[in-house]
Amino acid sequence: MNAEIIAVGTEILLGSIVNTNEAYLSRRIALLGINVYYQSTVGDNPSRLTHALKLGMSRSDIVFTMGGLGPTVDDITLLAIARACDRELCFEKKILRDIKAYFRKGGIKKIPPDAVRQAYIPEGAKWFKNELGTAPGIFLKSGGKVVIALPGPPRELAPMFEKYIEPYFRRKGYAGDWTIKTLTLKATGMVEADVNSKVKDILSLSGDTTVGIYARPGEVDLKITAKASNGKKADKAIKAIEKRIRKRIAPFIYGVNDETLESVIASVLKSKKKTLAVAESCTGGHVADRLTDISGSSDYFMMGVAAYSNRAKEKLLSVPSEDLKKFGAVSRVVAYKMARGIRDLSDADIGLGITGIAGPSGGSKDKPVGLVYISVVSGKKAVTKEFRFAGTRADIKRQASIAALDLLRKFLA
Amino acid sequence: MNAEIIAVGTEILLGSIVNTNEAYLSRRIALLGINVYYQSTVGDNPSRLTHALKLGMSRSDIVFTMGGLGPTVDDITLLAIARACDRELCFEKKILRDIKAYFRKGGIKKIPPDAVRQAYIPEGAKWFKNELGTAPGIFLKSGGKVVIALPGPPRELAPMFEKYIEPYFRRKGYAGDWTIKTLTLKATGMVEADVNSKVKDILSLSGDTTVGIYARPGEVDLKITAKASNGKKADKAIKAIEKRIRKRIAPFIYGVNDETLESVIASVLKSKKKTLAVAESCTGGHVADRLTDISGSSDYFMMGVAAYSNRAKEKLLSVPSEDLKKFGAVSRVVAYKMARGIRDLSDADIGLGITGIAGPSGGSKDKPVGLVYISVVSGKKAVTKEFRFAGTRADIKRQASIAALDLLRKFLA
Repeated sequence: MNAEIIAVGTEILLGSIVNTNEAYLSRRIALLGINVYYQSTVGDNPSRLTHALKLGMSRSDIVFTMGGLGPTVDDITLLAIARACDRELCFEKKILRDIKAYFRKGGIKKIPPDAVRQAYIPEGAKWFKNELGTAPGIFLKSGGKVVIALPGPPRELAPMFEKYIEPYFRRKGYAGDWTIKTLTLKATGMVEADVNSKVKDILSLSGDTTVGIYARPGEVDLKITAKASNGKKADKAIKAIEKRIRKRIAPFIYGVNDETLESVIASVLKSKKKTLAVAESCTGGHVADRLTDISGSSDYFMMGVAAYSNRAKEKLLSVPSEDLKKFGAVSRVVAYKMARGIRDLSDADIGLGITGIAGPSGGSKDKPVGLVYISVVSGKKAVTKEFRFAGTRADIKRQASIAALDLLRKFLA
Repeated sequence: MNAEIIAVGTEILLGSIVNTNEAYLSRRIALLGINVYYQSTVGDNPSRLTHALKLGMSRSDIVFTMGGLGPTVDDITLLAIARACDRELCFEKKILRDIKAYFRKGGIKKIPPDAVRQAYIPEGAKWFKNELGTAPGIFLKSGGKVVIALPGPPRELAPMFEKYIEPYFRRKGYAGDWTIKTLTLKATGMVEADVNSKVKDILSLSGDTTVGIYARPGEVDLKITAKASNGKKADKAIKAIEKRIRKRIAPFIYGVNDETLESVIASVLKSKKKTLAVAESCTGGHVADRLTDISGSSDYFMMGVAAYSNRAKEKLLSVPSEDLKKFGAVSRVVAYKMARGIRDLSDADIGLGITGIAGPSGGSKDKPVGLVYISVVSGKKAVTKEFRFAGTRADIKRQASIAALDLLRKFLA
């Protein structure tokens, strides 16, 4: 079963609103086991919409429309559906009764004259009551294909889809007997192209289990999707692929699904009963901000210092001024001394120090923009690493923060 | 001139991501005076994309694609463009040079083998350098039509469009005889509904000058758009509306267009030659992070401390333990003492202190989640205010940070 989605609305074509319905509806349809191969948007223009509907019905089994069901002359979806399916628009007095009842509930006794337009639907169509508005949803079979028209406002569309459309397809067995499950592996420390070349053969799998690769700044997600006759089989298929991927890039995978670097670190610190303090130069508080996004972080996060100036590094973190002179503020030695300094100052078990050049100014040939040193120290061990990042100031701050959290994660492992 | 936009990506068809590029690109194209009549999305499938491209080129003058330009086997946009326009893919060594340079900047000397794929583009195409990634943009004329391929990540797409595509169409005169100009007034400290009721009549203007209202967490934008026969007339129309709006909500407007609270604060601190230090409890480094997003912030940002624990507040910021006991860590007095403490510690001209309950736990009847105290002190004056915010932990952190920056802005005014 293949479906496609047509959004109707000039405001979407103009970019005045973001079409969030599309992602919602696509996700719900995919969960039914129905493939969505096309999404499109057409303005409030009857002939272009009619054309799009005909094209949709020629290549897909089910065509969903979103929007254009309101009472104004701009609302042309039902007219276009009628034309595309060669039907007339017919008055349905039960719909008018629903519309009147809806207005009455809102304290309005006399309905606006235009509201009557919404009671005209294509001949032979079924309709769904809209509990949060006046536009009914429409269901029409024509030439072996199905056309379903849903209202545009997300708060009307979603309940209607979940109340009427989903149960219909499940009942009819369109949805098949099978289940779709997904697992996202979250990786950092490798660029997308490197992840890609390590798992290329797995990414090109087709069939019931597939893997997609999605890059975000500093991070790469691998999303495994499995379709199977039941949940257990889907889980098993996912597990098998997960194992293959982990075998190749295990050290780079920090978590799954909704986990973040800071949530993973939180769990480890809590279970090991360790505390943490952070001294940041180029990231300016971004690492502390992320660590404290976790509820309960006050249990393990002792203190953060954004020490931009050499003076702050000396006075607060006890970085020796000779080191700053000899090696420069952006150096391996200073990162380490910052980590040690914040650990001493806070009495935390673990200290993290970050120093670097976020740019765009301040770089030199020897120490270019993007050069960052990160150090993690405990009572027993210390790790200091050099990194080079590219991009805008914000990109470099973000990437350096991710690298710092990842180094900390590995340190704790 | 008519254009259409094709988004490429199975993750969009599956609803895994919301296609925000679509609204951005549509808006920018409309501002050029070019009509967008169709938007569509196709998965990572060469034959369906080739088909969509052919359809697009049959009905529109310009076809934009977004996404599918990456280095992996899933990235099939250029292949499909080549097929739709009956061309070969040709290796361009200048592109490979750019890709190598991009990796080198990131400290990677040997590029991943797959990255080479991005240097193959349709025969006869021009390309745009991607400064924030490796995928070049593509410009191809074929059969009297224009195909433009842009990378999918919004942070790569937008700069490329604004740097290369917009100037091209303006130069070519595609953009029509009139000019569209916009001005965005940025407000904070009022909720959207309040701004709305203050300027309702202005928001309902129609015709050549219109005003839109857009809310973000903690902020409200008012965007004035004017269309006129030349730039001067558009500017004049905008000025007139701006004056009317400012008359009603001036104290809440902190800036215009791309200005941020931190950039406005940066300008004032620089021109007044004042320095700043920040002590944060509930915001955990978020304010320091935002302040240091500004290049050159090291000139005025002396130090930031994320002092979660009472111990940190006492030891580092010299908040008296009697105050912590008597008033509690979340109190007017402690906010003020934190501001004074960080000012003394850093020798900055101005100290900012923030204490509050970000939740979801830690609230009580007297001191509920969302209660925040913010204090700003200089040598001469001090302002301390109480705020109450709602939402998730991240919402409260963000809103408290905005309120702190806004209080600082007003303090400096």
